[in-house]
Amino acid sequence: MIVILKENPDQAQLDSLLTWLKEQHVDVHPTIGEHHTILGLIGDTSKIDIDLISALDIVDDVRRVQEPYKSANRKFHPEDTVITAGNTRIGGGSLTLIAGPCSVESEEQIIGIAKAVKASGATMLRGGAFKPRTSPYAFQGMQIEGIRLLLRAKEETGLPICTEIMDASQLPLFEDIDVLQVGARNMQNFPLLKALGRTDKPVLLKRGMSATYQDLLMSAEYVLAGGNPNVILCERGIRTFENYTRNTLDLSIIPAVKALSHLPVIIDPSHATGKASMVPSMARAAVAGGADGLIIEVHNDPAHAKCDGPQSITPAAFDTLAGELMRIHAVIGGEN
Amino acid sequence: MIVILKENPDQAQLDSLLTWLKEQHVDVHPTIGEHHTILGLIGDTSKIDIDLISALDIVDDVRRVQEPYKSANRKFHPEDTVITAGNTRIGGGSLTLIAGPCSVESEEQIIGIAKAVKASGATMLRGGAFKPRTSPYAFQGMQIEGIRLLLRAKEETGLPICTEIMDASQLPLFEDIDVLQVGARNMQNFPLLKALGRTDKPVLLKRGMSATYQDLLMSAEYVLAGGNPNVILCERGIRTFENYTRNTLDLSIIPAVKALSHLPVIIDPSHATGKASMVPSMARAAVAGGADGLIIEVHNDPAHAKCDGPQSITPAAFDTLAGELMRIHAVIGGEN
Amino acid sequence: MIVILKENPDQAQLDSLLTWLKEQHVDVHPTIGEHHTILGLIGDTSKIDIDLISALDIVDDVRRVQEPYKSANRKFHPEDTVITAGNTRIGGGSLTLIAGPCSVESEEQIIGIAKAVKASGATMLRGGAFKPRTSPYAFQGMQIEGIRLLLRAKEETGLPICTEIMDASQLPLFEDIDVLQVGARNMQNFPLLKALGRTDKPVLLKRGMSATYQDLLMSAEYVLAGGNPNVILCERGIRTFENYTRNTLDLSIIPAVKALSHLPVIIDPSHATGKASMVPSMARAAVAGGADGLIIEVHNDPAHAKCDGPQSITPAAFDTLAGELMRIHAVIGGEN
Amino acid sequence: MIVILKENPDQAQLDSLLTWLKEQHVDVHPTIGEHHTILGLIGDTSKIDIDLISALDIVDDVRRVQEPYKSANRKFHPEDTVITAGNTRIGGGSLTLIAGPCSVESEEQIIGIAKAVKASGATMLRGGAFKPRTSPYAFQGMQIEGIRLLLRAKEETGLPICTEIMDASQLPLFEDIDVLQVGARNMQNFPLLKALGRTDKPVLLKRGMSATYQDLLMSAEYVLAGGNPNVILCERGIRTFENYTRNTLDLSIIPAVKALSHLPVIIDPSHATGKASMVPSMARAAVAGGADGLIIEVHNDPAHAKCDGPQSITPAAFDTLAGELMRIHAVIGGEN
Repeated sequence: MIVILKENPDQAQLDSLLTWLKEQHVDVHPTIGEHHTILGLIGDTSKIDIDLISALDIVDDVRRVQEPYKSANRKFHPEDTVITAGNTRIGGGSLTLIAGPCSVESEEQIIGIAKAVKASGATMLRGGAFKPRTSPYAFQGMQIEGIRLLLRAKEETGLPICTEIMDASQLPLFEDIDVLQVGARNMQNFPLLKALGRTDKPVLLKRGMSATYQDLLMSAEYVLAGGNPNVILCERGIRTFENYTRNTLDLSIIPAVKALSHLPVIIDPSHATGKASMVPSMARAAVAGGADGLIIEVHNDPAHAKCDGPQSITPAAFDTLAGELMRIHAVIGGEN
Repeated sequence: MIVILKENPDQAQLDSLLTWLKEQHVDVHPTIGEHHTILGLIGDTSKIDIDLISALDIVDDVRRVQEPYKSANRKFHPEDTVITAGNTRIGGGSLTLIAGPCSVESEEQIIGIAKAVKASGATMLRGGAFKPRTSPYAFQGMQIEGIRLLLRAKEETGLPICTEIMDASQLPLFEDIDVLQVGARNMQNFPLLKALGRTDKPVLLKRGMSATYQDLLMSAEYVLAGGNPNVILCERGIRTFENYTRNTLDLSIIPAVKALSHLPVIIDPSHATGKASMVPSMARAAVAGGADGLIIEVHNDPAHAKCDGPQSITPAAFDTLAGELMRIHAVIGGEN
Repeated sequence: MIVILKENPDQAQLDSLLTWLKEQHVDVHPTIGEHHTILGLIGDTSKIDIDLISALDIVDDVRRVQEPYKSANRKFHPEDTVITAGNTRIGGGSLTLIAGPCSVESEEQIIGIAKAVKASGATMLRGGAFKPRTSPYAFQGMQIEGIRLLLRAKEETGLPICTEIMDASQLPLFEDIDVLQVGARNMQNFPLLKALGRTDKPVLLKRGMSATYQDLLMSAEYVLAGGNPNVILCERGIRTFENYTRNTLDLSIIPAVKALSHLPVIIDPSHATGKASMVPSMARAAVAGGADGLIIEVHNDPAHAKCDGPQSITPAAFDTLAGELMRIHAVIGGEN
Repeated sequence: MIVILKENPDQAQLDSLLTWLKEQHVDVHPTIGEHHTILGLIGDTSKIDIDLISALDIVDDVRRVQEPYKSANRKFHPEDTVITAGNTRIGGGSLTLIAGPCSVESEEQIIGIAKAVKASGATMLRGGAFKPRTSPYAFQGMQIEGIRLLLRAKEETGLPICTEIMDASQLPLFEDIDVLQVGARNMQNFPLLKALGRTDKPVLLKRGMSATYQDLLMSAEYVLAGGNPNVILCERGIRTFENYTRNTLDLSIIPAVKALSHLPVIIDPSHATGKASMVPSMARAAVAGGADGLIIEVHNDPAHAKCDGPQSITPAAFDTLAGELMRIHAVIGGEN
């Protein structure tokens, strides 16, 4: 951590800061310039609250050198994390294909789609039971009944299940679910993250619409710090000025976060683009860019889907796409 | 609502759409162009799920004419909403000044600040008991004890209390709190919004960092639709590329949202700018721009605040500022 | 175009609007609702100035149905544009690889890099002679001498040359240059675009840092409307809140703009990410996503490059990458 | 400047860096940590090209402590710059009101508006002669004839004139114009900025839609470094995800840039909001926030303006507003 002092800092305040820093077990190396004095802090600064120092009258600016996350940091955990969910592994060179409808709508629908996507190569089934909707008047999901139908589809196909949890109070309902998804709007719902940290369930943590890579890793840190090492990061588009797409898919997260962290990265081209016609292109790009997998909305009848129909592709389109994705994955040296 | 069809739409699909629209009790007026056919939908379209229509193969685009919120809409509720919290009113021409520390830290601290800001003209006390922090290692607030100390400060000063609730499960603890704040990160925590809609407590709803005005109004709609009419909107900065300030304070929300809705609008210059030195300028701007009030962080010793010290002003600075704000409020014709 | 009128519009103003629209040769189809009357305008509205209508007192909103660009629009030009530059073609299924240093620094440097990238499969040489730099104190390029050295490299290798023009007054210097690059900061330098529209030189038009897809296509329209059909679009990252990367590479532009327009799309992963270590991943993603080509910074000695060293890859890294790109291009069915 | 080295840097490269830094006349103070070594650079680093250092293999990150602009920096020029344009002063406590139509349309129009706004208290006349328009098919301004009519209005009213220059080649036409406006799209048109730096004309430099405060100050530095000290900064909204307003007016620029620089700051609420109904609110906010002035679009007949009608207010509305602005300016202690 680097602390840049204002010109002519008050000596008493400076002494008090130096004493406090010593108590935090960090060493201080000052560099004295004409306009600025810089303090280099050496030691474990990850748990120092940067705001406490910035607030001082004598301080002009404070900048971190060390990242503020530790458990999620590749520096302290160089090997890729590989997560087991049901009969599948996420990370470590494999290609995870999570597919399914935005919402569970009926037993016939979810089992039909599950069988279709499994036949095409999907390794996990997704489907929303509890749905976060912008409007209170929009369909909010089948809720408990939706969870039951997802577990029926798992029985039928063997596919592990990934579905969204919206509140810590719902945890008991998710006992047999394989991967708990935290939606973009809940990425900084800290009570929920803490509750998930106390479980050992894999968590698919979606990046908030205005979250930086560091914010995402800090939210992962909440789960990891609670004792649950099974976090999968998921990019689903960020909010920018461009409004042709629903969000802007930020694929640079793949090389960036893989350099910063050991956690697997999954891409969601369906929510990012909001348009089925753009999903295949962005799915191929994600695999070529090094993603650990994809989560794709597939619906047997997108025009009558109860939500997010415009971004769902058909099982036939998924079948073609899955083949392309596996060929690209092979070209860049991945396992298949 | 306007539906723009693709060229040469399939007649069977079009008939099926027209039938479905009739079932939703909307009238359809078609306009047939060379490249496009446009369907004008007339009637109450606020509860039609736009996604259902967009997903159809024959549809190119769907655009709302009517806003998707109803209870929050000024068209259906032309008078300003005025909210009562303890002994103060928010909205309707008055100037609400909510002041206090980021976090409650001790009885002495919170009562001292409460007395000081009351003497300067504050009409409500703020103070965090449950703190959403980006890092799991940062101070998370005094929690239940913090609530107790806030109520002590209310006893001492008579100021109503505004403090943040992070999860619906905390509601019983907030029984004696006057205004429940929903933080920016929870603006789309729908289970929390629904729970607040079932109470009759005033809710201070902060705009999410990447929420549009419409998103904010839709979140307000969740509370209103649940039966609680007491929603106060709060701008606290949005996330943009500019990184000199913590966030970008978007004061245009004042005239915009006051045209769209009848709900009061409060501005938080402290979290928006993240710098105490910028707070007075932006506070004055907000009042001159027509805000119903401000929420400002005031700390007796910003350099030793347990969080957000850099953005807190001292009681003395607040005293000077409050005087300026009242004079500006008088110039633009507000009550004092 | 759709015009949404306010409630109870003044009849005289409405008549005057209807007369004016008739003079613009558009037909008007009204839809009368309870709160809104909607006018559907049918005919060629691409040249109607939307602001003229929005300004009317009786108008609530105006929305385009038809795109405001015509020459760049795929609807009126369904086949892909294929552009010839020297001995290479851009668009139409081929994979264009433009490589070279940020700045031309010496004859030895530019010819050395040109030979290396040609051997690895590059089809065009890039190199800056006139450099737009944020700081007036930074290296501004070798200017005229830089152009001369690029032409020397062309003589030696046969590679066509792509380099940036910053002002219309420089046009005579670019007579022998094959592709004129317009930088992101100049995307809406309309005098420059008009001047380029009067030539027949291929123009590589970079997307501005805050330009929408439509803005980019409107800037292309300036060149096309001037009579020059040879426009290549280039994505080089947009400005967002994420600051780990220099900009956010928006690969969704590939399927989006290819649906909207017939012009080729080239991706610049070097400027977008600003980090050499991220270039290969994003280059692979771009090809898999369907880009017509890439423009990549290659420098023999990145650590001593006069600008943008951090984002330049070495000729050896380019050689490996080019092989991967060709294999991915083959997998997705492109020509090689 | 702070250079953060990677772990275990190559000693030969480190020696070469240290030698090079010594040649740049900066002193180096190293701080050696467990994972990082930090080099503090002391001396004049404003002209060091940060990219040259970042590109080195041994360097992890480089951060500036000193700002990269010098002539625009308040540290080296503590007093406010006050600029004289015709018979008016900008900066130093006065309130500059620049008003007029988006475009000059006729002699009658421009003289009529000039007389009206002068009577209401405007201190300068604005009006576009050369218009940057997104579409090549939109009205491009009256051009040379527009300049002539502006000078006629100056003769009639004595108001100094502010109008936009789009290209350095137009400079001779602007000889009698008092303030040369550089549009947001040209903020980084470096050939234009250099040409303006060689004149002594006041330059109104508009912030680009995605420019940071630092970018804006660097563009000002281009003009200042050329020898022209007369730069007025102008905020006109930035591009964000919010699309209710045309752009997001960022009033925080007022206290921020006034702390960083000595140059005057003018606010343009018309282009920022794009809606006449929002202009008065944001104009009042700007003055209360400490702006040195405003530039406001006023049109006698907004519904028939040739461009930007929706954001123009009438002379009557301007008259009311100007009175409010002067009262607010008095309350916050400004001159009138």
